[in-house]
Amino acid sequence: MTYRAPVEEFLFLFDHVVGLAQVAETKRFAEATPDLTAAILTEAGKLCRQVLAPLQRAGDLHPARLENGVVRTPPGFAGGWRAIAEGGWVGLAAPAEHGGMGLPQTLAAAVHEMMSGACLALQICPLLTQGQIEALTHHASDALKALYLPKLISGQWSGTMNLTEPQAGTDVGALRTSAVPNGDGTYAITGQKIFISWADAEFMENVVHLVLARLPDGVPGTGGISLFLVPRNLPDDEGRPGPANSLRVVSLEHKLGLHGSPTAMMEYDRATGWLVGAPHKGMAAMFTMMNNARLGVGMQGIGVAEAAYQKALAYARDRQQGRTPMGEGGIVEHADVRRMLATMKAELFAARAIALSCAVAIDMATATADADWSARAAFLTPIAKAHGTDIGLEVASMGVQIHGGMGFIEETGAAQFLRDVRVAPIYEGTNGIQAMDLVGRKLMDGGEAAWRLLEEVEQAAEAARPVLPDLAEEVWAAAESLRETTEWMLTQEPNDRFAGAVPYLRAWARVLGGHAHLAAARAEGGTGRRTALARVFVSRLLTEHGALLAQARSGAAGLYALSADDLAA
Amino acid sequence: MTYRAPVEEFLFLFDHVVGLAQVAETKRFAEATPDLTAAILTEAGKLCRQVLAPLQRAGDLHPARLENGVVRTPPGFAGGWRAIAEGGWVGLAAPAEHGGMGLPQTLAAAVHEMMSGACLALQICPLLTQGQIEALTHHASDALKALYLPKLISGQWSGTMNLTEPQAGTDVGALRTSAVPNGDGTYAITGQKIFISWADAEFMENVVHLVLARLPDGVPGTGGISLFLVPRNLPDDEGRPGPANSLRVVSLEHKLGLHGSPTAMMEYDRATGWLVGAPHKGMAAMFTMMNNARLGVGMQGIGVAEAAYQKALAYARDRQQGRTPMGEGGIVEHADVRRMLATMKAELFAARAIALSCAVAIDMATATADADWSARAAFLTPIAKAHGTDIGLEVASMGVQIHGGMGFIEETGAAQFLRDVRVAPIYEGTNGIQAMDLVGRKLMDGGEAAWRLLEEVEQAAEAARPVLPDLAEEVWAAAESLRETTEWMLTQEPNDRFAGAVPYLRAWARVLGGHAHLAAARAEGGTGRRTALARVFVSRLLTEHGALLAQARSGAAGLYALSADDLAA
Repeated sequence: MTYRAPVEEFLFLFDHVVGLAQVAETKRFAEATPDLTAAILTEAGKLCRQVLAPLQRAGDLHPARLENGVVRTPPGFAGGWRAIAEGGWVGLAAPAEHGGMGLPQTLAAAVHEMMSGACLALQICPLLTQGQIEALTHHASDALKALYLPKLISGQWSGTMNLTEPQAGTDVGALRTSAVPNGDGTYAITGQKIFISWADAEFMENVVHLVLARLPDGVPGTGGISLFLVPRNLPDDEGRPGPANSLRVVSLEHKLGLHGSPTAMMEYDRATGWLVGAPHKGMAAMFTMMNNARLGVGMQGIGVAEAAYQKALAYARDRQQGRTPMGEGGIVEHADVRRMLATMKAELFAARAIALSCAVAIDMATATADADWSARAAFLTPIAKAHGTDIGLEVASMGVQIHGGMGFIEETGAAQFLRDVRVAPIYEGTNGIQAMDLVGRKLMDGGEAAWRLLEEVEQAAEAARPVLPDLAEEVWAAAESLRETTEWMLTQEPNDRFAGAVPYLRAWARVLGGHAHLAAARAEGGTGRRTALARVFVSRLLTEHGALLAQARSGAAGLYALSADDLAA
Repeated sequence: MTYRAPVEEFLFLFDHVVGLAQVAETKRFAEATPDLTAAILTEAGKLCRQVLAPLQRAGDLHPARLENGVVRTPPGFAGGWRAIAEGGWVGLAAPAEHGGMGLPQTLAAAVHEMMSGACLALQICPLLTQGQIEALTHHASDALKALYLPKLISGQWSGTMNLTEPQAGTDVGALRTSAVPNGDGTYAITGQKIFISWADAEFMENVVHLVLARLPDGVPGTGGISLFLVPRNLPDDEGRPGPANSLRVVSLEHKLGLHGSPTAMMEYDRATGWLVGAPHKGMAAMFTMMNNARLGVGMQGIGVAEAAYQKALAYARDRQQGRTPMGEGGIVEHADVRRMLATMKAELFAARAIALSCAVAIDMATATADADWSARAAFLTPIAKAHGTDIGLEVASMGVQIHGGMGFIEETGAAQFLRDVRVAPIYEGTNGIQAMDLVGRKLMDGGEAAWRLLEEVEQAAEAARPVLPDLAEEVWAAAESLRETTEWMLTQEPNDRFAGAVPYLRAWARVLGGHAHLAAARAEGGTGRRTALARVFVSRLLTEHGALLAQARSGAAGLYALSADDLAA
């Protein structure tokens, strides 16, 4: 059983659901023709199946470890990284002037999903490196760009993101790492950072850390934070890695999953760094990296869901257990197993469509500089991240369930998906934070982005009525209820919004998922397997939106009627 | 942070929600006075906190292992078992004539929940031993009872359950293990069994296996299966363990969780066994053990949920991250964290009330031999098992989420709960099988047991109207919808029932949970922390029942509109 990259599915979504054509019609992304797109996804699919998927279990069995200060990665990971780098995959969406391919983020997102399904522990490394490329492209000086971007884009060097400190996780503003000017344009960075993914690797020529720290005149809180580039080895002007910087990996974490990915505590002791962006504007620069990473983490959830689904389906088709009302056959013929598999597939399709819609909005914003596209990308990012990772967790858990007792045995591999993906709803901003972002910052425009999306959903539903009257009505009605709840949200105090943020975000995912399924069903003329899947989604998943919206409007008072002592009683 | 046994909560549920008083009013359980009940739970709570909880992490770090045929258990487990045995906890509900305490199963269920919260990997051993005591009590010959029961009840010996074979899991009828009469009243048992929990332990004086096997004249399928008692060491007439039987532990599984519990593949090679119950009636005897174990597994889920909740709450009260709209404080002051904690607590209360109601019905059936109580116990068992374990998984996962990045680090301990409990929705009949049992066998009485339960829910809701009109109305209305869907179920073909079985079971859990919360709120006069929690349950969880019932009525056709090939496309 090997991971099979869902290339056809991506191409279908591009053509019929998320509208990649409009991206290819822009001058910026004119190269992204259907032929090139198909060729690229096919190539990436081969890499994932042939090179990366075989590393998945090895990464779990041979965790990254720290030996005399050197981070040793699992057998095969060095070769896997080399294949990713040499294939040009790190620089897929990076600027051509520094060696990238300049292709749409939508393609990069699809490739990230496939790499995540094949070997999540390794995929984190190119994902973070791409985020760093994005941040440097937008915020670094020309000198830094010229020196670092080619190395990162070619995959000779990799990039990390250093935000968290023991007392400063979600509350980044509480960080204590300091940056003191050295007087020569560089800064001395001192402090401890935790949860640093791919902080180092024995096979990496150099590792470039982006570190949030506070300048001496930085005010407390997020307003006083600046971003610094801190390489492991100080490069000369030609980009040859030179002397070791004053930083080290203190320890690696022992984690529930992602054993192949080294997660480090880092210590910076007057390490030499360079300012990226303006002083005290580190959060803005970091958010460039984070937003890219948030969509990428959403793709991680979806990729793991795809792999877990494939594995569970293969098992269910093969495993014989008793007769069913439908006759002999694998356990896939049992109604409840089929319910789980159909649910998994319907969720997967919806989450993937939502995430790729987000990617298309990002590309359109880049290509057109249109504020509406930026607003849509910003609105969809927390949904893509939170819902993609929620689905990752749920589908991986259902995958374990379908395997029965074998699911609990590590050799089977189903459990690894669950362990690996469990962090995705947590990192890059917990899913609770994503939901708060949605009902807070992302509705600050008075709901503009929301109204535009809902209008699109409703118009598409109207257009689908002649072909699929029942499905169209359900999607239309769900969008209407979501509109009402969005109006309600806009009139509420922040904490009442926050108290309903998570179910509100999921209600969006339900409506947007229904919209995507409807588009797919229409594309096949309202009859066929995609229509059947759309009916499963509408009858079994979209139907949750009423309860979700009721939960979204529950308000905070009921939660605070229970004191913390009451919760402990 | 140590596990704190929720003794007060049990006593409240006994008094105000599940009606333990009626059990104590029977002649059979007259000893179970409120004083004795409180004393017993307090003692058990001490054992769990002081002796068992400290073993939880050691069991994870030092998995059980097989060395030269000997099963070595984690450090401290031998002492833990001794404390359980010497405290008389194995025989709490066992017949007094063989050394048990003869107390209600309701108390045993509460004790099992506490032991599960403290150290699930070890708790499995007394749980299975009690199931075996139950099976032997009902089905074994007097000679077997006299020889084995005192040893099992005292905890000198332990018991296992041997059903599964590689090709025969859910489909037990496919088993191949054979039993051939030796001519002296014993049988030669030959075959392989897998997933045998606590198959052996270096500290156990003897281990007694209950093995399903087929006699030479046994027909294919479940109708030809008989049950055999097969001790590891053949005892003499005084119960001194003698020569080794012809059986062995072949290997131990490497599992996602429950590392401390040895899960074995067993080989029987003409091992000496004794028939338990009538020839070819093994399934009936095994079901006695399974039903007991099913409630016990439900308690496992609830126990782990309680422990995971306690840990997450302690972290959320301690962990400071930023200001909230409610001012400074731990992250428990953030609305979304509070939403998760309140949800966990509300779920926990409901699942515990349902499981204890099931236990009370079992006790009333035992004490009164009333068929209505038996029917209620039978009806509630799959709900208690499936919902208790679903909640265990969901609460453990939310516990990880509340811990943020720390939740993914194994040292924190939050992840272990998730890993350990993941098997509970799978073993003793998957939760899908439980749901099929509910809509199949358990509705075969034409819904009698269901109608009686719904009537009770509706009557209680009517009675609560003067005090809590809004909550009472919600619970009443939900019960009415459930009644309609139950009527619908009774008219459907099996596969249409099965296609909606899982959401139907959960809808029952929502309604019965609302019923329990309403009883708790009434008990405090409709104002106070229990009422606040009831409001959280009704507004955020009971509200799901509409969608659940719609899913329950979706039918099979929509699922089979997707062929297995469509699922793979």
